[in-house]
Amino acid sequence: MSNKPSIPQGTRDFGPEVVRKRQYIFNTIRSVFELYGFQPLETPAMENLETLMGKYGEEGDKLIFKILNNGLNDPKNQEKSRAGFEKVMEGKNSKDLTERALKYDLTIPFARYVAMNHGQLTFPFKRYQIQPVWRADRPQRGRYREFYQCDADVVGSKSLLNEVELVNIYNEVFTQLGLSGYELRINSRKILAALAEFCGGAEKMIDITIAIDKLDKIGLDKVKEELTQRGLNDEQISTIEKYLLINGSNEEKLNQIEQLLGHLEIGKLGIEELKYVVGNSQLTTDHADSRQPDKVGNSPLILDFTLARGLNYYTGIIFEAKGPATVKMGSIGGGGRYDDLTGLFGVPNIPGVGISFGVDRICDVLEELNLFPEDVYTGTQVLFFNMGAQESARAFNAMQLLRKQGVRCELYHESAKMDKQFKYAEKKNIGFIVIIGSTEIQNNTGVVKNLKTGTQQTVALADLNNKLFI
Amino acid sequence: MSNKPSIPQGTRDFGPEVVRKRQYIFNTIRSVFELYGFQPLETPAMENLETLMGKYGEEGDKLIFKILNNGLNDPKNQEKSRAGFEKVMEGKNSKDLTERALKYDLTIPFARYVAMNHGQLTFPFKRYQIQPVWRADRPQRGRYREFYQCDADVVGSKSLLNEVELVNIYNEVFTQLGLSGYELRINSRKILAALAEFCGGAEKMIDITIAIDKLDKIGLDKVKEELTQRGLNDEQISTIEKYLLINGSNEEKLNQIEQLLGHLEIGKLGIEELKYVVGNSQLTTDHADSRQPDKVGNSPLILDFTLARGLNYYTGIIFEAKGPATVKMGSIGGGGRYDDLTGLFGVPNIPGVGISFGVDRICDVLEELNLFPEDVYTGTQVLFFNMGAQESARAFNAMQLLRKQGVRCELYHESAKMDKQFKYAEKKNIGFIVIIGSTEIQNNTGVVKNLKTGTQQTVALADLNNKLFI
Repeated sequence: MSNKPSIPQGTRDFGPEVVRKRQYIFNTIRSVFELYGFQPLETPAMENLETLMGKYGEEGDKLIFKILNNGLNDPKNQEKSRAGFEKVMEGKNSKDLTERALKYDLTIPFARYVAMNHGQLTFPFKRYQIQPVWRADRPQRGRYREFYQCDADVVGSKSLLNEVELVNIYNEVFTQLGLSGYELRINSRKILAALAEFCGGAEKMIDITIAIDKLDKIGLDKVKEELTQRGLNDEQISTIEKYLLINGSNEEKLNQIEQLLGHLEIGKLGIEELKYVVGNSQLTTDHADSRQPDKVGNSPLILDFTLARGLNYYTGIIFEAKGPATVKMGSIGGGGRYDDLTGLFGVPNIPGVGISFGVDRICDVLEELNLFPEDVYTGTQVLFFNMGAQESARAFNAMQLLRKQGVRCELYHESAKMDKQFKYAEKKNIGFIVIIGSTEIQNNTGVVKNLKTGTQQTVALADLNNKLFI
Repeated sequence: MSNKPSIPQGTRDFGPEVVRKRQYIFNTIRSVFELYGFQPLETPAMENLETLMGKYGEEGDKLIFKILNNGLNDPKNQEKSRAGFEKVMEGKNSKDLTERALKYDLTIPFARYVAMNHGQLTFPFKRYQIQPVWRADRPQRGRYREFYQCDADVVGSKSLLNEVELVNIYNEVFTQLGLSGYELRINSRKILAALAEFCGGAEKMIDITIAIDKLDKIGLDKVKEELTQRGLNDEQISTIEKYLLINGSNEEKLNQIEQLLGHLEIGKLGIEELKYVVGNSQLTTDHADSRQPDKVGNSPLILDFTLARGLNYYTGIIFEAKGPATVKMGSIGGGGRYDDLTGLFGVPNIPGVGISFGVDRICDVLEELNLFPEDVYTGTQVLFFNMGAQESARAFNAMQLLRKQGVRCELYHESAKMDKQFKYAEKKNIGFIVIIGSTEIQNNTGVVKNLKTGTQQTVALADLNNKLFI
């Protein structure tokens, strides 16, 4: 083959600089998860197709990448393969053509893991998971067919303390990343349920949440239009409008919602949940930006009754994180509480709550705001020039001693013109060079040059140490 | 679905303890790669099918996991889908059924990446890559369908200094992992070429290497039988036997090979390569085991002329790493030099050399020899007991201060019997607990208990700090 090689649409190669930036984000998130007592889990890229199908709605099912069985045309398989293909052409699934698929998110594989291992796990089970997932979505700016998810869930506990912890995890991660001005919007599905009840019954819940979920995109008037189309009457829509217009500080909002929905049992429960989480999260004083210590914002935790979250398995508190208002970017994280993680897999009564970080978007936000630390780019710190066989042998020894001190070094691979070696250091953004030529061999020294400042000094080889290269 | 859930054959879930052990190995390898100036690269799980097909031989092609196109039964696709299926049933490939596949190794995607980006890369390009690959192999002990590879390659340089660096990377990684007694076997394909030439011509090279490669498994007599079957005559086989019986120290082996093959041009080149790499790698004095400082072994770098390495793209130095002789385990790493990485993708003349670590096997070896450091298992360090609403609010504050000092903490999720909370700490292997009850609230103190030693002390909350939990 001598075609120009390419990669599949919607996938990406990550070169050194991008890997380092992404690792910086992953490592920050991972260390905070660990600080909060979460433990790592990894599940395979492939799941059995039946584990995934039917879990993401009809549209979701279509976006699952299925893996072709191997040996389809083996004589012993041919008949089955044909039958399997015919079923797939009818829009059904067939194990005879494809029995495995790439995971579509981290939640269902986690549920499958908990269902398989619930006898051995210690509950509450707090796990985090940072892995790629795959979706056959139409690729577009910011939407990929292979992308990382970054989840933390606590299962086997109904305590709202978990929600408080997750709020603090968001805050700690975004603060460490320098994202002051981020917003963590919070609501409870119970409030939405109370609104639905108030507007004519629980069966309206889905209609109402679907319409409300679009508020950001289409505006209040269009939401009202949609509600009319969905069969709500003027009085109900007027209540919903009142609901959507609630504003002020968190406290003011709680007062208003109490007046509107506090008389309903489910409304009361939702208000209590929100009061507990907002009251105990103690974010206000923490929300200073370490990089701009003069700016201390208000609490980043914001009550938002218009927040609905599309997914219908949420039953309690729901979250959505957004970047600083100066950056045009959708949600950079989200999550919520669900009553029953593993019921789908035959193990009922395991409630939980979880959050997710949108790493690709966080990466874009940090890029736009220039928030990556300078040293995230640093690869090799020191290049030893190669000035010939004898010289490079001496350089090799000196380099090995520096490496023992943790200094990332290279020796240029061949004896070449100085120019060429300088250019290599420059292109690789290496900060220091060490030159050992014939004079230096005689004196047991090396010339250390700082390529950023241009300063240089001659150092005894025995004195080479990590402090020279900072 | 209420079937018992399961995962695909040959794949694995990694629970918290296993992830931590694997991370320990990955981090060790990664930090050594970085120390030697290698830079990270990540390529997608999926490649275009045409990128992979035909690169791994006929058997390899069969083991590639192919991804079914989405929307096969869309009315507009149906005809093409059928035609594609028929082609696949004839044993061919068809983009109309499957145009993507999961990567089978890291080398071909790396070659594809270099071919796509060679204009922008700085050569020599030193990259490392730690990612999963997928093979539809029959699963068996130690062989999985999804497993990690861990590669470092330098491309765009013919210098043997790269080989010397790679030898030192192996040594540094295995030493850091405590694997004293590992062996790094080394040979040159040029020596094998010389042997082939001496035995009747270059066209015998493949026959001879295939037979020699089996020496470990089937023994000398069977190798001789196989050579006879492959058409070599008695005189040739006697030469090969002499070759295979070469032994002694590295120096003695070099003397013997010089006598046998030193008169041939290609033999001379191979001997020079080996002399350079063995002579410059300077491993002898490094090979002390830091955990058993009284045992200083010989050089772990061992000349082994019986080493052939199956893959035919190697052209120079080849490597194979083995664990300590006390552990029955095949190769835990391997690699070698190739002349032309990217020619397959239309970009000729990029030579290189690379090595790989077999992480699954290294994990098994460390397990068997009990070489994982104790703190690799550590998750949460401190559990704060939950003794009620007021008490837990106080505990929460104390915990947040400890977390700011980097101590990994949890607060038990609900007010429960002490017994239950102790059991949770025990099951999660948490070393310390802090109890704040009503007395402690009054005194602004907490009771800190070391669960391993059983000792406890009462500490002022203001004095809680990371040094208490070591």
